[in-house]
Amino acid sequence: MQKTWRAAFHWGNAETPIDHSIAKHIEYFTQLYNVKTNTSSNLPGNEPIVLKQKSRLKAADLSALTKIVGKENITTDDFSRVRYSAGKFYGDLLKLRAKNPGKIADAVVAPRHEEEILKILQYCSKRKIAVTPFGAGSSVTRALETPKGGIVLDMARHMHRVIEFSPVNSTITVEGGILGPALEKHLNEDGFTCGHFPQSFEYSTVAGWVAARGAGQASTGYGRIEDLTVALRVVTPAGIIETKDYPAASIGPDIKQLFLGSEGVFGVISRVTLKVRRYKPQNTRHVSFFFRNFETATNAMREMMHAQSGVPHLFRISDAEETDVALKMKKLDGTMIDKVLTFLGYREMARCLMLVSVEGDSKYTSLVTKKMKKLARKHGGLAVGSYPVKKWLEQRYSSAYMRDPMMDAGIRIDTIETAVSWEKLHGLHQAVRQYIKAQPQTSCLTHISHVYETGANLYFVFASPMAGPNEAQDFAKFHKGLVDVIFKNGGSLSHHHGIGRLTSDRLREEIGPLAHDILKAIKRQLDPAGIMNPGALNL
Amino acid sequence: MQKTWRAAFHWGNAETPIDHSIAKHIEYFTQLYNVKTNTSSNLPGNEPIVLKQKSRLKAADLSALTKIVGKENITTDDFSRVRYSAGKFYGDLLKLRAKNPGKIADAVVAPRHEEEILKILQYCSKRKIAVTPFGAGSSVTRALETPKGGIVLDMARHMHRVIEFSPVNSTITVEGGILGPALEKHLNEDGFTCGHFPQSFEYSTVAGWVAARGAGQASTGYGRIEDLTVALRVVTPAGIIETKDYPAASIGPDIKQLFLGSEGVFGVISRVTLKVRRYKPQNTRHVSFFFRNFETATNAMREMMHAQSGVPHLFRISDAEETDVALKMKKLDGTMIDKVLTFLGYREMARCLMLVSVEGDSKYTSLVTKKMKKLARKHGGLAVGSYPVKKWLEQRYSSAYMRDPMMDAGIRIDTIETAVSWEKLHGLHQAVRQYIKAQPQTSCLTHISHVYETGANLYFVFASPMAGPNEAQDFAKFHKGLVDVIFKNGGSLSHHHGIGRLTSDRLREEIGPLAHDILKAIKRQLDPAGIMNPGALNL
Repeated sequence: MQKTWRAAFHWGNAETPIDHSIAKHIEYFTQLYNVKTNTSSNLPGNEPIVLKQKSRLKAADLSALTKIVGKENITTDDFSRVRYSAGKFYGDLLKLRAKNPGKIADAVVAPRHEEEILKILQYCSKRKIAVTPFGAGSSVTRALETPKGGIVLDMARHMHRVIEFSPVNSTITVEGGILGPALEKHLNEDGFTCGHFPQSFEYSTVAGWVAARGAGQASTGYGRIEDLTVALRVVTPAGIIETKDYPAASIGPDIKQLFLGSEGVFGVISRVTLKVRRYKPQNTRHVSFFFRNFETATNAMREMMHAQSGVPHLFRISDAEETDVALKMKKLDGTMIDKVLTFLGYREMARCLMLVSVEGDSKYTSLVTKKMKKLARKHGGLAVGSYPVKKWLEQRYSSAYMRDPMMDAGIRIDTIETAVSWEKLHGLHQAVRQYIKAQPQTSCLTHISHVYETGANLYFVFASPMAGPNEAQDFAKFHKGLVDVIFKNGGSLSHHHGIGRLTSDRLREEIGPLAHDILKAIKRQLDPAGIMNPGALNL
Repeated sequence: MQKTWRAAFHWGNAETPIDHSIAKHIEYFTQLYNVKTNTSSNLPGNEPIVLKQKSRLKAADLSALTKIVGKENITTDDFSRVRYSAGKFYGDLLKLRAKNPGKIADAVVAPRHEEEILKILQYCSKRKIAVTPFGAGSSVTRALETPKGGIVLDMARHMHRVIEFSPVNSTITVEGGILGPALEKHLNEDGFTCGHFPQSFEYSTVAGWVAARGAGQASTGYGRIEDLTVALRVVTPAGIIETKDYPAASIGPDIKQLFLGSEGVFGVISRVTLKVRRYKPQNTRHVSFFFRNFETATNAMREMMHAQSGVPHLFRISDAEETDVALKMKKLDGTMIDKVLTFLGYREMARCLMLVSVEGDSKYTSLVTKKMKKLARKHGGLAVGSYPVKKWLEQRYSSAYMRDPMMDAGIRIDTIETAVSWEKLHGLHQAVRQYIKAQPQTSCLTHISHVYETGANLYFVFASPMAGPNEAQDFAKFHKGLVDVIFKNGGSLSHHHGIGRLTSDRLREEIGPLAHDILKAIKRQLDPAGIMNPGALNL
């Protein structure tokens, strides 16, 4: 691998060819904004990383840490320091494209065992060296910035072992650094699945899922990571905390919960016991529907969640603009299909597409699908088969590859997501759209993709031409206003991305000063020297 | 109401007549142990409570508290002080029957509003007066003892209002002091149910459910209280914490979790927003099965939990001894039914009864029941219709009334419960039975009543003749050994009763010293004067 800026910021493997669906999206947006796809070989960031500022780690510290992990597991080279001091937030990408990485780590250390992590944390506590745990780097919330330098722990290098698998308990215990595909491969071979498929699946770790309190694309059926986490082990500067694999308990507050969403501020999640399910893809049923508008679509979705008749695993609605772009991608606008849809009352820029997948026992998947069809009919939905779901599944992870070529072409593309009760959902959706669409030449594609009995998430994808040399400041201002609108309209600061340092200045207001003081008290207890991921969660 | 010792310790309304099923149990055990049902009118505890030790609350404190709540909402009378300083733990009952209540509260205070609670906590913090929140007094874990005297907050007197009900969000917000029946009545009238039915349903409050991290009898389908709690408000000495009603969020650790299982040590749970479900009793299906032994019954149960075909709401297995007693209660032993069962291989002291109820949409209840029947057949189960479930439901709450007359007759009867992974379930069951059955003349009826994908609870009911004048000490020794056996065999200190002060000396070992230190740190933050339910959770 070339040690270029591009290799440091590019999503996934920079050599992965862009698939057909992504290519069409890029074509669509470049035409829409009248910008040019950049196919030159001289793309921004193609230069090797060479920094003026070398590692400030003292020789004694380097030597002490080397003694713990072995010299092949510690590096202070420029490329590694840059690559492990950033995630995939739009602002991170702008910085790295500008070859201005800001404050970066002084060394990258790859522990081989829990005991090494403990030694590292104890040493760094004594020496007041900041420590940032790093899974696979997909954070979009500035959780991986290193404002105080220090070291980054590369958890995925060694700590990706499967510790124990119990079909009887329906659990698997793994080290925190295991990546999604390795976990799922291991399980599938034994006829199981974890059911946790975030868009970052290919480049995120189990500990990262836990630390960010994430949710996979099929979370409506499988549950979020907090529902899937049975037990965990966390190495903190004060020692190791292990929770037990009880199916439930009433022994004071659930300590495990403190680390679900902890974003590395209390310690390093070294082991996780996850609930697993039987893998029966042959039973999976897909169905999709057009609704006449977003409101009737969400009404049908909500009724399904309240029907006490089982729930889908994948459950999504694209709002009118997202549906419109999807149809354009398939070149369906203006075709006979479009005309028939319009004739039936499913009009352009009003109609919404709903995707449903149900997994499990064959009779269950049949029942849930039938119930959904019935409720869809009641709300004016038109069933259009499994094809749209299958096409969506094909690009479920690869759509993340879109951003780099879009940015190469001068297009800003980013997302923001929130959770909200059903009562406030439409107000929030409209307010955010109004804010985003008030910007010149801006697309706003919205979907619901994680559904609960009491509400749902809203996921906004926005795109526009970049603001030129002021892009970073312009984007920051835009983003701040966006968070304000979400906040004012009753949405959470995040539904599944976490908050890192991106919106952490709002956390105290979000959860209240007393609750934030509790987090501080826990931090003092577990990390008295304040070395763990300083600044994340505003701690 | 007469202000007797009996009125202070008796379960529920002492005037409630004993129902037929309970009467038969009492008859069975009195005959088994050859003791006499006590029908004299001179039962222990029939005397009015008159204490030598009067309230030690200083006049200035009494006056200050009276100013906050009004004089009709504070009392220092002997009866109230005794009644509100104990729960329904077997040891509590022994103490009160012996007219030796131990250290009791100095006053009972009934706040009318959240603001009054805050004022009380702030005042008591300043004056170092202990405060114990009291819902409806059904604790069986010594959570309601008042080792430092002080005041008890009678939360059920006024704070039982419904604040808001949202069919769209599928939530209800109530004050913490509302009792189960009032909540359910309110919901049923609108076509909804909370689905939380602990055995203490008639005499427990929503805040009590949350504080004890409880589970209802239908928790397998509806979820435990932590699954049902969407948001809450807690008044702490440091101020009020409110969590929001997001359906889910990724904004740091879930603060709400700190109060689920908090047992009054951090503050007073003043408001709770609960998830509610559509009430469709007409669709409920009941079915029951005999299995040849406990192992095949649990295998069928576990497979059902792993089938991804929906789950029952009520899901129970009685072990061989509990099944045996149940059949004897129905006078089935020795009948043709007994002979047929035996002929078919469902032999006495081996066969186990499984009860299943499924709620929800009619097609769903049909599917789940069918699947359960299929799995039962696979494991040699014999379907025996809905009758056993219906009979069980008739006494789902009233069986708690059994203990007082049993104790009147000189019979010790108590329970202990735990949660355990599937892999460890049989080992734990056998070890506990071995320990209990090693006592002379002791019955041990066990059931699984709360089921999860990764394990289940085990609930042990044990009965024996009382040990005479040494009963309290004898029982304490027996109980300590019992907890040891559970601990050693991988069971949790509690599954849904909480730990109060009963097993709290084991909490630090159970969760580890670091985790317990976290609870202490939170306690210092929210209750720096250490006034909230001192000693509970070993804090």
